[in-house]
Amino acid sequence: MNIAVVGLGIIGGSFCKAFKKYTNHHIIGMNRTLSTAQKALDTGAIDEIGAPETLGKADLIILTMYPQADVEFIEKNGNYIKKGALVTDASGIKKAICPQLKELAEKYGFVFAGSHPMAGKEKNGFDVSDADLYKNASYIITPCGADQKYIDILSELAKSIGFTTIKITTPEEHDRMIAFTSQLPHVLACSYVMSPCCPNHKGFSAGSYRDVSRVANINSKLWSELFLENKEPLTKELDILIGNITRIKDAIKNEDKETLTDLLEQGHQIKKALGE
Amino acid sequence: MNIAVVGLGIIGGSFCKAFKKYTNHHIIGMNRTLSTAQKALDTGAIDEIGAPETLGKADLIILTMYPQADVEFIEKNGNYIKKGALVTDASGIKKAICPQLKELAEKYGFVFAGSHPMAGKEKNGFDVSDADLYKNASYIITPCGADQKYIDILSELAKSIGFTTIKITTPEEHDRMIAFTSQLPHVLACSYVMSPCCPNHKGFSAGSYRDVSRVANINSKLWSELFLENKEPLTKELDILIGNITRIKDAIKNEDKETLTDLLEQGHQIKKALGE
Repeated sequence: MNIAVVGLGIIGGSFCKAFKKYTNHHIIGMNRTLSTAQKALDTGAIDEIGAPETLGKADLIILTMYPQADVEFIEKNGNYIKKGALVTDASGIKKAICPQLKELAEKYGFVFAGSHPMAGKEKNGFDVSDADLYKNASYIITPCGADQKYIDILSELAKSIGFTTIKITTPEEHDRMIAFTSQLPHVLACSYVMSPCCPNHKGFSAGSYRDVSRVANINSKLWSELFLENKEPLTKELDILIGNITRIKDAIKNEDKETLTDLLEQGHQIKKALGE
Repeated sequence: MNIAVVGLGIIGGSFCKAFKKYTNHHIIGMNRTLSTAQKALDTGAIDEIGAPETLGKADLIILTMYPQADVEFIEKNGNYIKKGALVTDASGIKKAICPQLKELAEKYGFVFAGSHPMAGKEKNGFDVSDADLYKNASYIITPCGADQKYIDILSELAKSIGFTTIKITTPEEHDRMIAFTSQLPHVLACSYVMSPCCPNHKGFSAGSYRDVSRVANINSKLWSELFLENKEPLTKELDILIGNITRIKDAIKNEDKETLTDLLEQGHQIKKALGE
């Protein structure tokens, strides 16, 4: 296949490097800043630098920019896309963009299915992209009405570069789960490091501090977009979390050891039931 | 030195294994459940099984039980301890037990200095103890009036088994910082996994879920004791955290992108300033 990856940050760059390392597909890279695309070409992460006018060569297009930028890119360049080509994204939210991309697919005659590779790092950009970023990770697909044969193409491709779990779901279910698994930890990490104690943590900290604070090193522009585009599920999860923290806090304040132990034991049992 | 380690869970067991691996000290192990002490002896983690009546042989005694159990052990067995011997603990709280242990030291003629090895795992018990648990970790000492020569002995011993940072502080400062670096992440982890989404996270989760939820697999009995014995600093930190989460939540609810981006950017800048 000719695969065009639009956006060469950590996610797009890692797709390119993984395709080059593990498959024989022809990889076309596109990036707003041309010097990054040039670097990708020079380091062998892509086979050629693409442009909107040459998008027609691509059998598969993977959009890895910010969610709204993905939509705008297609609005602007949809007419260059080959009829019947498969287009997917890599966004952390689905409900806010999938219907628009589906509509654009119908307008321009390509096929759209959403997807979300569940991998990342606490740093961003092409320089930290990695051919093995997706090893053992989960690949979520939101078909949005695309035929099974296209879902199979995406699934097989994902498996070929290291993903071990393929999850097929709806945009709504995706967004509800991602609010919990990914967005909540990012809100938490930022909230956590705002404590006046944080700048003095060294010498007093170990794995717990490291783990909770890790993703506080956040891309504030990207994540504020992601949070706002998932407002309902995320604020619901935040209310649940604040409620649970408050229950534990109250038990401590009231020196109610029985309730406190019961609450902590719930955490223990939930993890145990998950085999974690 | 003859070193007696009282309590052979993950912390005590790791001390024994590390002393055996990296030093030539003679290691005496004591544990409430005798079969664990026997296993420690059989696997070469200790040189002999101790008993209260033989505590007089020890130049250094390390208490690694629950905080109040440490105090009770000395109340009961203080008369067996050699005059001038050094006694330390390994507890996650200091203000609630250091004054009592210092008083007992004066009563029985030994020297007490508090300490807290900043290392652990999400599992407990002798079986997961590890000679290299303390590698690159921080060792916090609360001298509580002990002479510098005793602090030097503890520091050198800690370095000999892998600790790379020695932090000397007061019980108050220790407890205030530990509320943030260690206790808060444990409250968070338990609160987090109580979400109704948690049992279905597989396929939707990656590093962020794993990191925040890791320590939810908690020893509820130990940690409820630790939390209650550090009530003031911990509830203060919890109030700060709930406040910060709420500020981010409100910005999302109000679709106030500028405030939201500013708040997330604070997280980014704090981590950046720490070089993390």
